[in-house]
Amino acid sequence: MKRFMDDEFLLNTETASKLFNEYAKDAPIIDYHCHINPKEIAQNRHFENITQVWLGGDHYKWRFMRSCGVEEKYITGDAPDKEKFLKWAQCLGKAIGNPLYHWSHLELKRYFGFDKPLSIKTAEEAWNTCNEVLNRPDMGAKDIIKKSNVTLICTTDDPIDSLKYHDEIRNDESFDVAVLPAWRPDRAMNIEKPDFIDYIKKLSDVSGIEIKGFADVIAALRARMDYFAERGCMVSDHGLEYVMYAPAPNEEIEKIFLNRMSGEIITRKDELKYKFAFMQAMAEQYRERNWVMQLHYGCKRDNNIPRYKTLGPDTGFDCINDHTPSGELSDFLNAVEENGGLPKTILYSLNPADNAAIGTILGCFQDSKAVAKIQQGSAWWFNDHKNGMTDQLRSLAALGNLSGFVGMLTDSRSFLSYTRHEYFRRILCNMFGDMVENGEFPQDYDILGQIVRDICYNNCVNYFGFLLKQI
Amino acid sequence: MKRFMDDEFLLNTETASKLFNEYAKDAPIIDYHCHINPKEIAQNRHFENITQVWLGGDHYKWRFMRSCGVEEKYITGDAPDKEKFLKWAQCLGKAIGNPLYHWSHLELKRYFGFDKPLSIKTAEEAWNTCNEVLNRPDMGAKDIIKKSNVTLICTTDDPIDSLKYHDEIRNDESFDVAVLPAWRPDRAMNIEKPDFIDYIKKLSDVSGIEIKGFADVIAALRARMDYFAERGCMVSDHGLEYVMYAPAPNEEIEKIFLNRMSGEIITRKDELKYKFAFMQAMAEQYRERNWVMQLHYGCKRDNNIPRYKTLGPDTGFDCINDHTPSGELSDFLNAVEENGGLPKTILYSLNPADNAAIGTILGCFQDSKAVAKIQQGSAWWFNDHKNGMTDQLRSLAALGNLSGFVGMLTDSRSFLSYTRHEYFRRILCNMFGDMVENGEFPQDYDILGQIVRDICYNNCVNYFGFLLKQI
Amino acid sequence: MKRFMDDEFLLNTETASKLFNEYAKDAPIIDYHCHINPKEIAQNRHFENITQVWLGGDHYKWRFMRSCGVEEKYITGDAPDKEKFLKWAQCLGKAIGNPLYHWSHLELKRYFGFDKPLSIKTAEEAWNTCNEVLNRPDMGAKDIIKKSNVTLICTTDDPIDSLKYHDEIRNDESFDVAVLPAWRPDRAMNIEKPDFIDYIKKLSDVSGIEIKGFADVIAALRARMDYFAERGCMVSDHGLEYVMYAPAPNEEIEKIFLNRMSGEIITRKDELKYKFAFMQAMAEQYRERNWVMQLHYGCKRDNNIPRYKTLGPDTGFDCINDHTPSGELSDFLNAVEENGGLPKTILYSLNPADNAAIGTILGCFQDSKAVAKIQQGSAWWFNDHKNGMTDQLRSLAALGNLSGFVGMLTDSRSFLSYTRHEYFRRILCNMFGDMVENGEFPQDYDILGQIVRDICYNNCVNYFGFLLKQI
Repeated sequence: MKRFMDDEFLLNTETASKLFNEYAKDAPIIDYHCHINPKEIAQNRHFENITQVWLGGDHYKWRFMRSCGVEEKYITGDAPDKEKFLKWAQCLGKAIGNPLYHWSHLELKRYFGFDKPLSIKTAEEAWNTCNEVLNRPDMGAKDIIKKSNVTLICTTDDPIDSLKYHDEIRNDESFDVAVLPAWRPDRAMNIEKPDFIDYIKKLSDVSGIEIKGFADVIAALRARMDYFAERGCMVSDHGLEYVMYAPAPNEEIEKIFLNRMSGEIITRKDELKYKFAFMQAMAEQYRERNWVMQLHYGCKRDNNIPRYKTLGPDTGFDCINDHTPSGELSDFLNAVEENGGLPKTILYSLNPADNAAIGTILGCFQDSKAVAKIQQGSAWWFNDHKNGMTDQLRSLAALGNLSGFVGMLTDSRSFLSYTRHEYFRRILCNMFGDMVENGEFPQDYDILGQIVRDICYNNCVNYFGFLLKQI
Repeated sequence: MKRFMDDEFLLNTETASKLFNEYAKDAPIIDYHCHINPKEIAQNRHFENITQVWLGGDHYKWRFMRSCGVEEKYITGDAPDKEKFLKWAQCLGKAIGNPLYHWSHLELKRYFGFDKPLSIKTAEEAWNTCNEVLNRPDMGAKDIIKKSNVTLICTTDDPIDSLKYHDEIRNDESFDVAVLPAWRPDRAMNIEKPDFIDYIKKLSDVSGIEIKGFADVIAALRARMDYFAERGCMVSDHGLEYVMYAPAPNEEIEKIFLNRMSGEIITRKDELKYKFAFMQAMAEQYRERNWVMQLHYGCKRDNNIPRYKTLGPDTGFDCINDHTPSGELSDFLNAVEENGGLPKTILYSLNPADNAAIGTILGCFQDSKAVAKIQQGSAWWFNDHKNGMTDQLRSLAALGNLSGFVGMLTDSRSFLSYTRHEYFRRILCNMFGDMVENGEFPQDYDILGQIVRDICYNNCVNYFGFLLKQI
Repeated sequence: MKRFMDDEFLLNTETASKLFNEYAKDAPIIDYHCHINPKEIAQNRHFENITQVWLGGDHYKWRFMRSCGVEEKYITGDAPDKEKFLKWAQCLGKAIGNPLYHWSHLELKRYFGFDKPLSIKTAEEAWNTCNEVLNRPDMGAKDIIKKSNVTLICTTDDPIDSLKYHDEIRNDESFDVAVLPAWRPDRAMNIEKPDFIDYIKKLSDVSGIEIKGFADVIAALRARMDYFAERGCMVSDHGLEYVMYAPAPNEEIEKIFLNRMSGEIITRKDELKYKFAFMQAMAEQYRERNWVMQLHYGCKRDNNIPRYKTLGPDTGFDCINDHTPSGELSDFLNAVEENGGLPKTILYSLNPADNAAIGTILGCFQDSKAVAKIQQGSAWWFNDHKNGMTDQLRSLAALGNLSGFVGMLTDSRSFLSYTRHEYFRRILCNMFGDMVENGEFPQDYDILGQIVRDICYNNCVNYFGFLLKQI
């Protein structure tokens, strides 16, 4: 029997242990997709207490507390921070099988040196220990990032963002971690949303390009892409219900756009046509700029309207949308391919039943422009746990080229989430260890060690083209 | 190597064994959803032979025999009981990997003390042993229930049922197991069925409420709910193709109802609108009465029409329907939430590919009215086996609050199925044992033991509000 | 720790090892579905070098090389054979978790006696060893088949094929392996394809039946079925996007056919109606002839149009289509059942998420005409790997009658793929070993050994009705 989350956590064979300790553990972290607020880095934010870090914005934890029947005042409400923490500790103590259990304990160990299982029994002690550590001067956002062995971060930014905090961070010579913007133009795509017209006006203002039609939208975005590129942007990201294929002539798209700008509500069909045209135009830009295109899809957001009205978006009321037709995804990719070629592309579906379909679609669009040019992203959001990651890794290995995989990202809003890279690396090394010790792959550490290092670090450097040295 | 189905069956670690033996094994059984015939309990039915118990109404076994190429006369036909049993034994002997193998052998061991593998080689001996036991005076339905350590049963009943057998059972002071009715109003929802008009007339008669429109249907059902509630009903249940979202104004629903009552065939669209309105109205009632709403969906029934014409429904010709859109399920739940709030709700999909989507939908509608107010039901029907249960448990653990799970039910027509609770408990404890011995959860028996007891028993008591003591 | 792919490869228990070595290993191979070119058998084709065998037509390997960023000239292009092989060896060396790794090494071991892991380090040696072996006189196609212990092969043939190579093979008295044609009439079904009109003309010519309408298409095909039957055909095969249910009156089908023959482009709806009518007519014929109907579906082909234009079909640009409605599959089967009864039928979906639905549909249409009359085919194409096969086997075991399964086929274009039968048998025996040693099934080798032998060989003989002795 193994001890609870000791050094050999998730490493069930000697091969796994050796791979993790000698090849993965000390590899730096590239967090190429996250939702960290760059302002908090620029200002080297300090946190008063563990509740602020853990429960300040983490909808995973909020969801779990609601599932335990906790009143909202202890979750997003106005209960005192300590009471919130005690409620959380009580919930977590029974969270067997939930990734929050492992994430939280990894964070307790690595950042706070707190080594006991958190439950109502140890909550008081944990509260004191964590807060004592958080109040040390070397626990600002920048410090935590440095301690975590991170070399590069891509945030997630709207095209109209000034990126001034990125500038500030870049100009801080004492902080040598690259914090690059990433391009997320969802608001220019979501033509059905109430704020679309306003947004287009803002985009016009910020870009200095008068927007009279769809072509101008793209022109304005191109101007902003130049601006982002000057600040090091090399990655884009899109949030889509599903990847749609809805071709229409340019004139029709222009007409749909004008109708919408005149205040009309457009049909679902027109919405899809506009979005498809938008995505095609973006993909073309990414290819020309050699940016990576990330597609996050399969999510249905804000499902509980009463709660949405009270709490707003990203508060724990999203779910998997299982309408993710592989046929349209494939047709979309082909349309881009026919239209001059695909950019490097990473596909993330929130629906784990899509793993196999994605794995086979990748293979239809690979070429020699990059190793594993079309990638399946790491297990995302609700799938970001031991079983979900293992399923994604096994599926990708069976259907594609796992050795070319760009690996883990946090997708997180928290500065403590870098331990998820450790979690991923343990799971990866354990899978390889199982294969080797089961006679399914040779125990050749030259090859195995290189694959591990590549997935943990080098593939990212090569694939995205970051200006970093390989290990 | 472990011996075949010995005491350590499915318990692969010491932790699993300790959890099962000390916390799960002796916990009483609450069978909150089954299809037991209350008449057979009231009359303390005795069975002549093992064929009557096992092959009298068990479409799982019928299906398996057909898959083995057995002629129908040995299945539902007029072959002598012993010949049927011998055919069954021959089929079962080779049923490696099928849950029937484990279910049958648990029943043989626990109820008949028959400890050998059943196959054509041992069939004669098994026939004699089982029949000898069945002919003992203490092997009536009530006796079996008592022997099985059952404290409460919810049957499945139509709103027009008189519940007279429930009354008889309640009045039998020598029998201290609660046998409560559960409310299953499918026939009042299935507007497309040929017998709908007749059924509405019967509902009118039984409730004493003249039914001129849809509002009267609901009024009549409310009257019957009062009747059911007086007899202890606290649980409802619905069988749905899928959970649909098809809102329409009240007037339209009334019109659809009137059209149908005048003998018209209604369109599929109108059918869905009626059903959605019906489900909304029911959900509102359940919330007001604090009843639990169970939704069973994802089943396509009676697929083999020639066989349906000969044998009728529930004879082994149903299959998984993979049209179970998570978007509509979520929109349905939101509609009820907006309309005053959801009742406690348990979701069961027959499509195991839905596990992840359900796990994420639960979290969108939880609140402090109950622990795990929205539940994912235990692996149902075709998924009610080791892999299916494990998948459901792991998915629920990763995406929701497993410690609040109401756990197992038999969903069975047979009095011998209570051993499936044992099967479930072994699988549950084994999963926990694996987690603990793999260092993924602390070996803290206070916490683990409590979680096991809660899932096996206490959560049911709390969640449904049954008048039973906790353990 | 086990050594890399030694004799105990994938056999993790003593029970598994015993089952494989004593019951499975020496069982002959019936390859009842493949894409071997009968001409190459008839002419006993020899291969100059390993590149010709391995990379000449294997789109699995091509895909993988593209995923590694290899230039097309080393894949399907004009680079020298040795350079291609070196590129392939470099890719394969890192293909951890990919079935190509196991397939290739099994082939290296069994056919070439090459026992080292292939990678860039050993590529030169492998090139020399394999080519030396290939140039031996006893390495023609017929020799390889004999060495592989194959007793029967079904190829895949178009109705207009003359089957002359089958005749040649049959007339070669020195070659005692049955090589039977299998009936694949896709081109007569694919009414939407540009070459449909031409094809119908050819069919008319070859059959000698003037085709003026849909009924004549069926008549012409019946004539060709007679021709195929005379040459031993007992198996049909269909490639379908999905199994559709789209009933229409005969007159409508005739009209659709005539429209298409007049050069019109028909609607998607009409296409589905025609295809449904076609499939119904074929199924009726199969039942009458006691042929097996194989349905392969869930594939979306030729997704990368620019590559399709250059390289043509079957070059590695296909993917899983997740539009595979279980409802329509079930309705199709019922329609055939109502129309006189189903033939023996094998269902293969490329979408592994369909396993459970298929498992439950089988059970709706079984009868005593054959053991496991409706089968789920072995894990197909993208699922033909350790996890995919295990999932299919576990699902079939849980939902159907595994002991009646007809087991493995290669579905391959290569003469070296017979080792996949070994791969399958190891996985099967290992699964049984796990069950037995975990106490889930008795260690009764009479029963277990018989089940293994049946799945590896006897079930095929019985189910298809091949004129072969059982083992």
